[in-house]
Amino acid sequence: MPREITAFSNPLIKRARSLRDKKHRRREGLFLAEGLRILSEAEESGRLPSEIFFTEDSESHPRAKALIDATEQAGGEAIRTSRAILTKLSGKDNPQAVVGIYPEFDLSLDALDRDSAQIWLVAQALRDPGNLGTMLRTGDAVGAGGLILIDDCADPFSVEAVRASMGALFTLGLAAAPWTEFLAWLRAGKGQLIGTSLDTDLDYQEPRYEKPVFLLVGNESAGLPADYAAACDLLVKMPMMGKADSLNAAVATAVMAYEALNQFRR
Amino acid sequence: MPREITAFSNPLIKRARSLRDKKHRRREGLFLAEGLRILSEAEESGRLPSEIFFTEDSESHPRAKALIDATEQAGGEAIRTSRAILTKLSGKDNPQAVVGIYPEFDLSLDALDRDSAQIWLVAQALRDPGNLGTMLRTGDAVGAGGLILIDDCADPFSVEAVRASMGALFTLGLAAAPWTEFLAWLRAGKGQLIGTSLDTDLDYQEPRYEKPVFLLVGNESAGLPADYAAACDLLVKMPMMGKADSLNAAVATAVMAYEALNQFRR
Repeated sequence: MPREITAFSNPLIKRARSLRDKKHRRREGLFLAEGLRILSEAEESGRLPSEIFFTEDSESHPRAKALIDATEQAGGEAIRTSRAILTKLSGKDNPQAVVGIYPEFDLSLDALDRDSAQIWLVAQALRDPGNLGTMLRTGDAVGAGGLILIDDCADPFSVEAVRASMGALFTLGLAAAPWTEFLAWLRAGKGQLIGTSLDTDLDYQEPRYEKPVFLLVGNESAGLPADYAAACDLLVKMPMMGKADSLNAAVATAVMAYEALNQFRR
Repeated sequence: MPREITAFSNPLIKRARSLRDKKHRRREGLFLAEGLRILSEAEESGRLPSEIFFTEDSESHPRAKALIDATEQAGGEAIRTSRAILTKLSGKDNPQAVVGIYPEFDLSLDALDRDSAQIWLVAQALRDPGNLGTMLRTGDAVGAGGLILIDDCADPFSVEAVRASMGALFTLGLAAAPWTEFLAWLRAGKGQLIGTSLDTDLDYQEPRYEKPVFLLVGNESAGLPADYAAACDLLVKMPMMGKADSLNAAVATAVMAYEALNQFRR
């Protein structure tokens, strides 16, 4: 049976709300996800929340009701609360119907099976959680195996990243590693590393991409460090016809990823 | 000579700060842009701010100094202020070196010259200002003539949109119009209208794009209304290999725009 909580001061509400901060996420090893669509993706990939928050209204929605029941059956806690509290948890004026708390995932490279996909996305020192989430969403679309975060990136478990991923956080592979560790892992098996760079004349459509291809983009402002670029099998650039010299990092990744997919599906 | 303002309560500071709100932007017909790069793009496209804010530190930067001087020579006001106030104006912990106030642009369709470019971007009911700015940035990259905003879109003059555009707001064409007005304008001349849709089997790489091509994406959640889709010359879809059925709107636009550019440059 769902528990009813309507006080903002309730410790469970305060704890859930605290997971909007990275410090608390790290300490607890938990994160927040919102919205029927994202929680459904999570369930389909075999993950149910430890706690699910919802309003009376949500319960009349069959998909939400099923999620609530499944959470309880798996030993999780279902918490019926007010719209005002859900708004506070969600941080949006128009709160989603459900909010869930999930344990963070294992982000080790060893959990990835490089042979399971043709395309892998790799981001280095990516600062924007929205870009990170968007890359996950794009990764899903091109059938990528996952996203590998190099060095100090935005937190993939932040509310913004989870939201922008539209659920792909739960369905795609995800790993984080320092550069040297990634490079050692990559070179221990098959894989072509293609970096995007401003310091190359090679058009991104010129070379033949090889499976599995690892598409590497650098930090939003600084791009790839020179020694990282030097370690790539190929450096390519997208044509830039205007005044600016670079694309948004998530956009650059998507343009590269669709080129790879288009070559592989031809 | 620059004026010195160090009080948060100064009316000019309060007025500048108020331009973070759409209501105030509309009332004053002004908006904020931040950062050397963006203000430089503006200057190159012939626009100088009516007021430029900076700190003592900024003045030692030659590019910033040149911008400050040019603003004063053009009759604008240069305001030296504190880092704390610049942070407040910029809304970021790490404020940009310069913040400028600019008059909003004319957004009428008649200001666009469709023959000036091969590619035009069209967004319908786009809600996210970051997506809007990213589309402008992508538009610059593919040599698009501009971005046309249909129906009720996010505000292109919002701080988030200006920032995400990386200056392309100043260099690209920009118009806003209701759908019927846009359609009448489009059909009064040459132009192929290609919409992205989930309800089509036509792969986005199959058809031959014709110049000038108008690439239309719909609202982030709802996609294109059925009658809008019906008015397109072609509806296409990107391959979706994963669990989700759509891409981020700015990503979808970029994938389409690079396909158009790739066809035209072949």
